[in-house]
Amino acid sequence: MGSLGPYQRKHKVAVVGSGNWGTAIAKIVAENTAANSDVFQEKVEMWVFEEDVEIPKTSQHYDPAQTSPQKLTEVINRIHENVKYLPGIPLPANLHASPSLEETVKDSTILVFNLPHQFIIKTCEQLKGKILPYARGISCIKGVDVSEEGINLFSETIGKTLGIYCGALSGANIANEVAQEKWSETSVAYDAPTLDSKAPTPQRSPNASQTDLVQFEHKDTSGQFSRVKLQALPSEYPPVDHAVLKTLFHRHYFHVRVVNDVAGVSISGALKNIVALAAGWVDGMGWGDNAKAAVMRVGLMEMVRFGEKFFGATIDTRTFTEESAGVADLITSCSGGRNFRCAKLSVERNQPIGEVEKSELNGQKLQGTLTSAEVNKFLKKQGIEDQFPLFTAVNRILEGKMSVADIPSHIER
Amino acid sequence: MGSLGPYQRKHKVAVVGSGNWGTAIAKIVAENTAANSDVFQEKVEMWVFEEDVEIPKTSQHYDPAQTSPQKLTEVINRIHENVKYLPGIPLPANLHASPSLEETVKDSTILVFNLPHQFIIKTCEQLKGKILPYARGISCIKGVDVSEEGINLFSETIGKTLGIYCGALSGANIANEVAQEKWSETSVAYDAPTLDSKAPTPQRSPNASQTDLVQFEHKDTSGQFSRVKLQALPSEYPPVDHAVLKTLFHRHYFHVRVVNDVAGVSISGALKNIVALAAGWVDGMGWGDNAKAAVMRVGLMEMVRFGEKFFGATIDTRTFTEESAGVADLITSCSGGRNFRCAKLSVERNQPIGEVEKSELNGQKLQGTLTSAEVNKFLKKQGIEDQFPLFTAVNRILEGKMSVADIPSHIER
Repeated sequence: MGSLGPYQRKHKVAVVGSGNWGTAIAKIVAENTAANSDVFQEKVEMWVFEEDVEIPKTSQHYDPAQTSPQKLTEVINRIHENVKYLPGIPLPANLHASPSLEETVKDSTILVFNLPHQFIIKTCEQLKGKILPYARGISCIKGVDVSEEGINLFSETIGKTLGIYCGALSGANIANEVAQEKWSETSVAYDAPTLDSKAPTPQRSPNASQTDLVQFEHKDTSGQFSRVKLQALPSEYPPVDHAVLKTLFHRHYFHVRVVNDVAGVSISGALKNIVALAAGWVDGMGWGDNAKAAVMRVGLMEMVRFGEKFFGATIDTRTFTEESAGVADLITSCSGGRNFRCAKLSVERNQPIGEVEKSELNGQKLQGTLTSAEVNKFLKKQGIEDQFPLFTAVNRILEGKMSVADIPSHIER
Repeated sequence: MGSLGPYQRKHKVAVVGSGNWGTAIAKIVAENTAANSDVFQEKVEMWVFEEDVEIPKTSQHYDPAQTSPQKLTEVINRIHENVKYLPGIPLPANLHASPSLEETVKDSTILVFNLPHQFIIKTCEQLKGKILPYARGISCIKGVDVSEEGINLFSETIGKTLGIYCGALSGANIANEVAQEKWSETSVAYDAPTLDSKAPTPQRSPNASQTDLVQFEHKDTSGQFSRVKLQALPSEYPPVDHAVLKTLFHRHYFHVRVVNDVAGVSISGALKNIVALAAGWVDGMGWGDNAKAAVMRVGLMEMVRFGEKFFGATIDTRTFTEESAGVADLITSCSGGRNFRCAKLSVERNQPIGEVEKSELNGQKLQGTLTSAEVNKFLKKQGIEDQFPLFTAVNRILEGKMSVADIPSHIER
């Protein structure tokens, strides 16, 4: 893998976040930097929210002499395992855990974000001014931030807050299965910032401190373009393009397809959770495989319609129907995902889904119910609920205004 | 439902075939002719391959005084139940079973075909000259006939043999679930023959015996058009169009979408069985939901590619990704269909799939293995096996030349 060209500098990669999925992605990234040391510095920094942990007796690293709790970062760096969030999975030795956000991102040209939704803004605020101004990001955070006013992709929120370009990674990926190196696929979306043809062509900067600017066309949810100024990556680095990103994320057990469509990849990951609720209810009713496939089909169509309507020309509808982040993630989520399971149980037990959520998820929250409410508010404000009959039916059922038995007649076209 | 216009004559509908799926469709059709007597004659004839049957003791129609076997047609017409092929399902009283092909189709303007593959040609040969020359057909027979030379849709085979136009019906439809009126969806494909603009505009025939001709553009597998002469439907009948077909097939539990794309609807129904084999193997390996969704995604892409390649401009790729006959039927088939189940068992038992087929299917044959071999022969002749890595992998595994464990690396792009 030495074909990416002769550049003076290598990319330094940092992973911001170290939960279940964060650690699984950090493992992949560190395996790939080690295998491609012509492009990447081998060592990968991973930011860990520091906490005290105890190594369980079942672990091969359990030491009876060690009686006091230890720092999670120290454990990860000593035994190369995230005993708290990804137990039992050996991590590469070149993956280094750090409790300091600032240390983690220092000199890094590629930042991989993998945090719970509620920490994104706060973490980005802390990172302001600490990152290289020409760094590039990839957000592995599923979902989007929908309000009455509009839809914000998390990759956009990160990019805007930090003043960098940020793409997205999403797919049919259950973290533990990926960590165990069971084969899966994913989608990386990255629409590389380009030189603005209307501005005087800037020279590629020969050193990192220079501030030649590029402009790139940034899409908002109205389908309009706006221009955002970004700093060019110095020319001594290999350009961050689809080939470099494939090299960074692709493994023999984790197949990557890189596309341009950040919006499609991101909104798929949010909307499929609404569909999974409907599929779970229908399955819970005992209506059989035909009916479940029918709601999934209608859901997929509404995902496509939503993308076309609110991201206009910037979206590629094939993202929904042909990429892992689209149809494949929808299928996985409607097979055994938590939204599907809780919805199914709520019908079988004749319990509100909120109660199932409490009893089954140990305090974690269902994404589907949140997304459904947000998307419905947005659609209602636009006055187009009727164009999305399945999404609307899901929200009405959650609000207790409709019953699951009414789904077929409601979505009939 | 009296809005289809004032025509002097009503359509007479016949169903050719009375197996499990044939009887379920005949039930729907008869329910709809009864409910729409402005467009259709109420009575629907169904051709039944005559045989002797005994009514089981568990049936409410069991009569201990009746000791000798009875004719299936007589039983159906007396107790309104197909005790042999769709037991336990009440059939409408206006559905009449006939042992005579000729009597069944006499004066019928709409012929619904629902036969096992191996009887299509023979039955159509027997029907030659017995049908109205301006009748129209709908084939509910899943699959296509692929050979080294090309791909024939069953609807085309029927149409050519009888000299009529024939559309297709296919979807995520498990016959017993449809018969029980569990909600499902289906796709009806019908590209209505049109007047040839290059020929002198024919007058609509005022009576049935007149032979004004229309020409319509018939598609062969090379994507070329050829012209076929067809007889125009006399103008005293409502035209057979999407509205009439929806009225004939749509029920509150059986949602119909009518499209033009006969080829897409037909080849989806064949190719999805190849994908279901791969999904079954992967599931049998215990690789998890991510992996299963990945082969389904790749399979759906190859279905689209196959359609684009061999049916060119005449196919609408949205049939695969948005219609019940496409993605929904794929999902159902990869959930619990027989190709999926037998493939899964073959991995779990470490048995060739042919042995599983024998032990599990009571003498019935898997469609997926047949279709895989046929499609592979065709792709090989065209020299493009490598453009369809999943289809090719499935065939190699069936031939014992590749192992299931090699699927991920084989389909890696």
